[in-house]
Formats: sequence, structure tokens, C-alpha cells
Amino acid sequence: VGRPRRRRLSYAGVGVDRTAIAAGVRELVSAVRYRPPALSGRPLSLPGHYAGLVRIGAETLALTTDTIGTKGLLARELDRWEEVGEDVVAINVNDLAAVGARPSALVDSVSLDRPSPAVLSAIGRGIDRGIRKARCALVGGETAVVPELLNGVDLGATALGFFPRGRRPITGSRIRMGDRILGLPSSGVHANGLTLARRVCAGQPGGFGFRRRGASRSIGSELLTPTRCYVPAVEAIADHPGVTGLAHISGGGVRNLSRLSSKVSFNLTDWPAPPGIFRFIGAAGKIEPQEMFQTFNMGIGFVIICRSRSVGELRRRLGRVGFRDMIELGSIGAGSGVHLPGPGLTYEGYG
Amino acid sequence: VGRPRRRRLSYAGVGVDRTAIAAGVRELVSAVRYRPPALSGRPLSLPGHYAGLVRIGAETLALTTDTIGTKGLLARELDRWEEVGEDVVAINVNDLAAVGARPSALVDSVSLDRPSPAVLSAIGRGIDRGIRKARCALVGGETAVVPELLNGVDLGATALGFFPRGRRPITGSRIRMGDRILGLPSSGVHANGLTLARRVCAGQPGGFGFRRRGASRSIGSELLTPTRCYVPAVEAIADHPGVTGLAHISGGGVRNLSRLSSKVSFNLTDWPAPPGIFRFIGAAGKIEPQEMFQTFNMGIGFVIICRSRSVGELRRRLGRVGFRDMIELGSIGAGSGVHLPGPGLTYEGYG
Repeated sequence: VGRPRRRRLSYAGVGVDRTAIAAGVRELVSAVRYRPPALSGRPLSLPGHYAGLVRIGAETLALTTDTIGTKGLLARELDRWEEVGEDVVAINVNDLAAVGARPSALVDSVSLDRPSPAVLSAIGRGIDRGIRKARCALVGGETAVVPELLNGVDLGATALGFFPRGRRPITGSRIRMGDRILGLPSSGVHANGLTLARRVCAGQPGGFGFRRRGASRSIGSELLTPTRCYVPAVEAIADHPGVTGLAHISGGGVRNLSRLSSKVSFNLTDWPAPPGIFRFIGAAGKIEPQEMFQTFNMGIGFVIICRSRSVGELRRRLGRVGFRDMIELGSIGAGSGVHLPGPGLTYEGYG
Repeated sequence: VGRPRRRRLSYAGVGVDRTAIAAGVRELVSAVRYRPPALSGRPLSLPGHYAGLVRIGAETLALTTDTIGTKGLLARELDRWEEVGEDVVAINVNDLAAVGARPSALVDSVSLDRPSPAVLSAIGRGIDRGIRKARCALVGGETAVVPELLNGVDLGATALGFFPRGRRPITGSRIRMGDRILGLPSSGVHANGLTLARRVCAGQPGGFGFRRRGASRSIGSELLTPTRCYVPAVEAIADHPGVTGLAHISGGGVRNLSRLSSKVSFNLTDWPAPPGIFRFIGAAGKIEPQEMFQTFNMGIGFVIICRSRSVGELRRRLGRVGFRDMIELGSIGAGSGVHLPGPGLTYEGYG
């Protein structure tokens, strides 16, 4: 009967049990058995991706849908809504970019507990910033006022993308040993891990107003930074034949790379030191590195996999559209899973 | 100082202030100013409709997004989730059908306070029933567990539709005086007016278990009945040149007809007696007819406007796909607005 163990924060510990969620999602998906006739268009199977594909006439269309989740609770706490408006665009178009699709149109869905014009106007300004970066149109949306259902704002969107003439979906199926793994830095935590990050901040003096050592602004402001939009980067390289895989590092962190292929290993030998915000969350919350890397993007928001001979050309193309911060993270090898020899971590996929 | 006035229920009175919501939505929409370049596809303007249109290559695509709103609170109360799974498909594909688009693909978005496999499985079974009726594919989705944000389940979806070769969007622009107005009955309240309907039921002995006179099941079961899917009906008639306008009677009720054209009047001289469920809600809640008809579908879930000479042919086509219950509601006339001489109501559009 020793003293109580030091409490360590994990996603399960704050009410987000990944295993239970995955089981629930499997229940939903397996209950849906209907496959439509060809006259309704032809859905394409795309295992391991967040985008759904459908062929209509001569066009292949991609659909992604995502919400900002509990980042809306942070927005409410700080009463700042423009950032999450930009987020809800970025998280969706980045999922389109991860299959090489070009964003065309977006619809938003806002559920909130009271019809506040100031909140909706700020969300609109953020959506405007988001679609400007992604170069797509807002073509519709839904606003539901449901006071009994919500404590705040549930903000989601769906994005529609397509493949410009000659471009095919980039699925990861061409990834092979010897390919290089490139990374594009994130702008912060983006819209993932917020339940955990908020819990950590609640334990600091001043809460979200707390300023961590070395930071120029409050931790709340840091966390609220909008998700970086990777669409211009992908548009610059998606037609290059050396590109074999793309991944948006969102929920599930770097572990999601294993969804691209189960037949190779992703060896991230050169993952850079995570930015201060992640080191702070990990230390203040006493969160294991294994949990950090499967919850947060840890500094890299988007991954490109390519033939090794193409690295130089892709670097030039990315630089020309403002992505001068591309870094090499490692290589594709034999075996399977995602390996980070630096922190000594291994993820074996989702089984 | 007389006695207090009898309290009448209205949407504003239960926390759903249409004017405030409309003002908020205007704030959001007016903050979004960006228009993308042609290389991202070309959004088409479609005033008065819930579907957004975008032209990509040779295809015109339609996107709709909607949530079941507070119908989820009723589902939780009764712990029955299959019906709302079917609803979230129907409300979206009906909005596609209202521009003449054929549904192709759907993505769902479920936010819930705990990852219950039973709830998600039932929602999946309902989605399966929904897409089977609409003949479209579920190509993706998002499940977010956000316990702090939600009391229950926020269930939404986005549907993608297209126009089969030769078919053009049916926008209402060709509506002219003398056209006939046809109606397809609803299956109940569908997914609109639930906040008000729930409030009315809460005042009955037994709550949702209450059985109104003449009903074969509880009021809760009646309210939970899934939204009727009008896709087969529209597919049967959308290529007929006599069809000039279509409308899904959802939030806003019959008042929404005025969105189709501000240059003609919609004269609903033959609106049938509303089904018992609506008469019960109106009487038990002491709700004015003016409020009832702009909140509930009042028995008609979908409206077709057509040249008078086409009525017979459309009736035959609808009958062949199982919609033998089409009824004639009235005619298009001079002036503007929606007129119901039976109950003596007039709506002059949304200004």
C-alpha cells in the first residue's frame, strides 16, 4: 500500500478513449452496407485516408468532413472566434490535400447555444481567411441554434475537391523502400489534442493567460493559432511523378503515417526537436512521449513522401510558393510501422 | 391589471428567435468575401435554395449540409437512434432533390458526449436505410467525442449531388402565372419544429409516452418518425420540361416557397386539413396558425410546381415510383408571397 502513483494525463484520462471511439466508429461503418447503382456515380475505395472519393462522369471528386471539436471551448473561453473559423477550413482542405485533391467548394455547419451576431461574424471572417489561402469557395452552410444540446459552439465543415486534368489521387500505394520522408512545420497544436492541452493549462497560474517561459504571448493565444493551410504546398508538387505519399498530421499524430502503407516502415530518424509549446504541454502535464506523439503533431503538420532523387526539385517548388521551411525527416525502409529513434518510439499501426 | 394573458408558445419563446438567427447568418455570410479563381471550379449563384452549386469540368455539382438539430434530444429521451440516422440522410438529399440534383455521396458528422457503440450502430443502421432510399453512397464521416461541449448527440451530414446528362438545375426561375402547385405528403413533423413540439409534449401527462386521441402510438414515437425521402419522386419527374419549381418544406415551413420567386404569388387554395399530430401540437401548445405554418410542414413535405398541362403526366410518373399520394395544392398567380385562404394566412417572404 504505497503512496498513490503520480497521475499522468492521457487522452483516455480526460474522457477521450481512442479504443472506445474506434470501436464505436466501426459499429457505425459496419452497419452501413448499401452500395448504390452506377447511375448514382461510383464511390472509390481509399483505405487509410480521411477523404472519400466518388467518380461522377469524367471527374473524380473528393469529400472531407471535420469539426474543430473542443477547440471551440477554448475559443469561447477567450471569446475569440476568427481563429477557429480559419481552422475549420484548414482542417478540411488539408485532408483533401492529403490525397492530392484541389479544394473547390466548402459548406460550413455551425451549431450554437445562442444566435450571437458577433460570434458568427468573427467565424465568417475566419472562414474568409481560410478559403482565401485554400483558394476555394464557400457555397453554403447551416446555422442551428440548439440551446439545450450545446454549451458553446460546435463548428464543422465539409470540403469538396477534384483532380485537375491529368492528376491522379495520391494514395500511398506507390511508396517503396528508399523513398524519402519530408515534413512541413505546423503553426502550433492546430485543432488536435485540445482537450488534453486545455486540461494542462487549467492547472497553471492564470489559466489560459499564463505565459510559458520563452513565449511572447499567453498559452491560450498560442493554442488558438489557426491550423496552417498546406494546399499551396500540395498544389505546387502534386503533379510531380516523384511524389508517392501525402499525410495530414492531425488526430492520431504521426501514428497516422502507418495508414498509408502496411508493407513498409516509416523511419523518422531526423524528427526535429518539438517546438516549445509541445515541450511545455508534455512537461506540465507529465504526459508520456508515446502519448504526445499520437495526440499532437509535435511540430510537423504535413508529410510528403517522394523518390529520393526528387527531393531537390520538390524543395525548389515548395520554396517558390512560400514553403521554405521543408525539412527531411527520414526514409522508407523494410518492415512496418512508424519509428522515431530519437525519442525511442514505435507505433505499429491500428491493427 | 387584468389576469395574465394566456401564454402562447412560439419559436422565439422557446429560445429559437428566427430574426436573431437570420441576422447572425447574414453577419457570417457577409464576412465571407473571397471569390476563388476559375482554376478552382466555378461556384454558381442559386438564390433561395439550400443547395450550393459548383461547376467542375463538364459537371455541375450540388452540396447540401444540415443537422437534425434538437431531434437528437428526443432520440436521447427515447434512446432510439435509428430514426435520426435515417433523418440526417433524408433532410440533406431532399435539399438536393429541391434543385433537381441526383444524390451521389454523403459524409456524416457525429459529435457526442460519450462513445456509445450502441448509439453509433443504430445511427449507422438508420444511415443505411436513408442512403438505400436515396440510392447514394456513404463515402466518409467524422465522429468526435466532446463531452464538455455536448449534452447528447449533434448529428449532421453533407450530401453531394449532380445533374445527369441533359438535366439542368431546377431553380424556380421559369415559374409563371397559371402554373400548378402540387404537394407530396410528409411522414410527420420530419426534423423541424422539434424544440416547440418537445415543449408541448413536456406538458402532457406521461410526457413523450402520452398517446393523443386517435393515435396508435405514443407522441414520442410519432415525432421520431423519419423524414420522408423525396428523391425517387424527383428522379421520376426532374427531366420533364413541364416542371418549373421544387421545394423541400423544412425549417420555415411553407413560407419558404416565396424564396423560389418574388415575382409571383403562391396561392395554396386547396391545402388539405393538417394531420392529427399538427392539430394536436397547435391545440395543446395554443400556437397560432401563423406560427404553425412557418414552423412545421403541416402535412406536405415537398412541393412541385409545373405547367398546368403537365399535371396528369407528372401524376402518372409519380405513381409509378410509389408516390400515389400527390395532391394539387393551388396555383401560381399575380402579386407575391404565399397565401393560404383556408386558414387565412399570408407570408410576404423574408424581406
